[in-house]
Amino acid sequence: MSLLTETVAAIMPASADAMAAAEERQSMLTKPRGSMGPLEDVGTRLCGMYGECPPPLPEPVAIAVFAGDHGVCAQGVSLYPQEVTLQMVGNILAGGAVVNAFSRQVGAEVTVVDIGVAGELEAAPGLLVRKVAAGTADMTTGPAMTAAQVQAAVEVGIDVAREVIAQGNRLLAIGDMGIGNTTASAALISVFTGLDVADVTGRGTGIDNAMLERKVSVIEKAIKINAASPKDPIAALAAVGGFEHAGMVGFLLAAAALRTPVILDGVIACSAALVARAVAPQAADYWVAGHRSAEPGAKVALAHLDLVPLVDLELRLGEGSGAALAVPFVQASARLLREVATFDSAGVTDKE
Amino acid sequence: MSLLTETVAAIMPASADAMAAAEERQSMLTKPRGSMGPLEDVGTRLCGMYGECPPPLPEPVAIAVFAGDHGVCAQGVSLYPQEVTLQMVGNILAGGAVVNAFSRQVGAEVTVVDIGVAGELEAAPGLLVRKVAAGTADMTTGPAMTAAQVQAAVEVGIDVAREVIAQGNRLLAIGDMGIGNTTASAALISVFTGLDVADVTGRGTGIDNAMLERKVSVIEKAIKINAASPKDPIAALAAVGGFEHAGMVGFLLAAAALRTPVILDGVIACSAALVARAVAPQAADYWVAGHRSAEPGAKVALAHLDLVPLVDLELRLGEGSGAALAVPFVQASARLLREVATFDSAGVTDKE
Repeated sequence: MSLLTETVAAIMPASADAMAAAEERQSMLTKPRGSMGPLEDVGTRLCGMYGECPPPLPEPVAIAVFAGDHGVCAQGVSLYPQEVTLQMVGNILAGGAVVNAFSRQVGAEVTVVDIGVAGELEAAPGLLVRKVAAGTADMTTGPAMTAAQVQAAVEVGIDVAREVIAQGNRLLAIGDMGIGNTTASAALISVFTGLDVADVTGRGTGIDNAMLERKVSVIEKAIKINAASPKDPIAALAAVGGFEHAGMVGFLLAAAALRTPVILDGVIACSAALVARAVAPQAADYWVAGHRSAEPGAKVALAHLDLVPLVDLELRLGEGSGAALAVPFVQASARLLREVATFDSAGVTDKE
Repeated sequence: MSLLTETVAAIMPASADAMAAAEERQSMLTKPRGSMGPLEDVGTRLCGMYGECPPPLPEPVAIAVFAGDHGVCAQGVSLYPQEVTLQMVGNILAGGAVVNAFSRQVGAEVTVVDIGVAGELEAAPGLLVRKVAAGTADMTTGPAMTAAQVQAAVEVGIDVAREVIAQGNRLLAIGDMGIGNTTASAALISVFTGLDVADVTGRGTGIDNAMLERKVSVIEKAIKINAASPKDPIAALAAVGGFEHAGMVGFLLAAAALRTPVILDGVIACSAALVARAVAPQAADYWVAGHRSAEPGAKVALAHLDLVPLVDLELRLGEGSGAALAVPFVQASARLLREVATFDSAGVTDKE
């Protein structure tokens, strides 16, 4: 049995009993019913994921940043040159990127997974070198990854999730670094939602209308030439995805198998989540939408995943920055169930 | 010179130089321009408030919860009986309320100011007893507060802000506890924005349509009978406000005078901010909108204050809970300017 098959077989749905207990407890807490909005739903879902009510405090927190390069950059889809992937990974490892600043804010540990960067990185604390290849192939001329590559990349993601959970982390988040990866993400979102490419493709780091048109036609060509279809999710992932996406798919499935919540970041993580859900629908029980990215594809993907984003700050960076900012919200939702007194216990009169 | 006059005279506008330096620095950081959405604006504003770029890390954090009762409760405007104010203050002091759970999450210290609770509280850590009276008078039959009471309550707020800043706190937040206080808030918002009462009045803890209609007519009557007008802000505050609101007005003005940012919570804090701005327009430079409350009046007030809320989770609780959840965002916005590398320093290629 392959590592992927074994992982998928281990995924159990969230505990309905724990969620029912959480719903009941929510109504007894000293606050007007429903007054905590979507945080109440997240708290209840955490109980289902961990299988207990109240849930444990979701800490410590690990953020896995999957980094890879994209052959499709040759088609001129991004404002930044491809070497920025390698440079920005270096920046993250040096602690100077936005995801580092936000992770320090929320008390999360950042791990960068070099799963497909086109260039060599020196060994550094926080870097896992699990390179499958030095970037994907250009998806407009054939599949971005071979069958062997996509399998290897998914297995890297499974391994990484198992490792960070074995280290004791109770809450995970995923982020990305890869110039060109909003192109691959839009392609995956179009394939897995059935929506037109133009409706799910955004400006990435800030391209203008002419480049956006070009990006849309590049994606349309890639989907067509590879005949990418949601019926074979892993083949579609290989066709128009990236190594980051494949790593995230494995990570999301393995975390679900180990009943550990994962906060999704923006459009890259959300597109990977669509693929992972196509592989194992129950896995989605274990994911929390970190933020509502400015990328149109992210909104579409979250709607299809039936997830309500917690942070809404028009962020459009990636790296896991939006997921990091959602960490205190997820932890706060657990604290509501763990720490807030009930009307009875506090001697507070409930509504008349 | 009165304490209020002295406080208002000390308020200086935010530093334009520091904000200009921040704008320039934002564009040099290793992220696409504008990709941090409103967090960039908050970071820039923090520089203006503190008068330096980058700004200090906004910590430690103090949340002041102003608690008071409302004579207008006699008119049947709330779902909860008035004694819940006293009970919930006890719950906060015991650490069992939502604001406590969220403050632990974000590392903030909660201080409850009994500025007008109808009932006696035992001395407790975290409680400041500065009671002006045991609740306001019924605003439908005359002013809620006398001229002497409103002055005393504003001075309490000034004192409390000075104290928490003297203790070393660099970031403040304000919350409230007071059954009936969304009624006073809607009255103030209508008076200070000129909008119809029906357009700024919400369901508070969750009243039905019939009670909402009653609440609107009660507020209309109170505004009319007292001839409340924005031309004399303190008189309008006395007429239809609460002790919480008056305390917050003093707190907001004193914090501005001491160049210390304050995160506003929901509709109560936002209505107090409208009053404070009418007293001293420059003071608004020092306020950050914590969250977009579910109360319609809060949205209207924030629009009039020209503030963009950071948290958008349909919260409708008060206590400072929404402001508490915004603390990590405010701190993260400072970290962007303090900790993120520039393209030059990190050796990252800027866009082509």
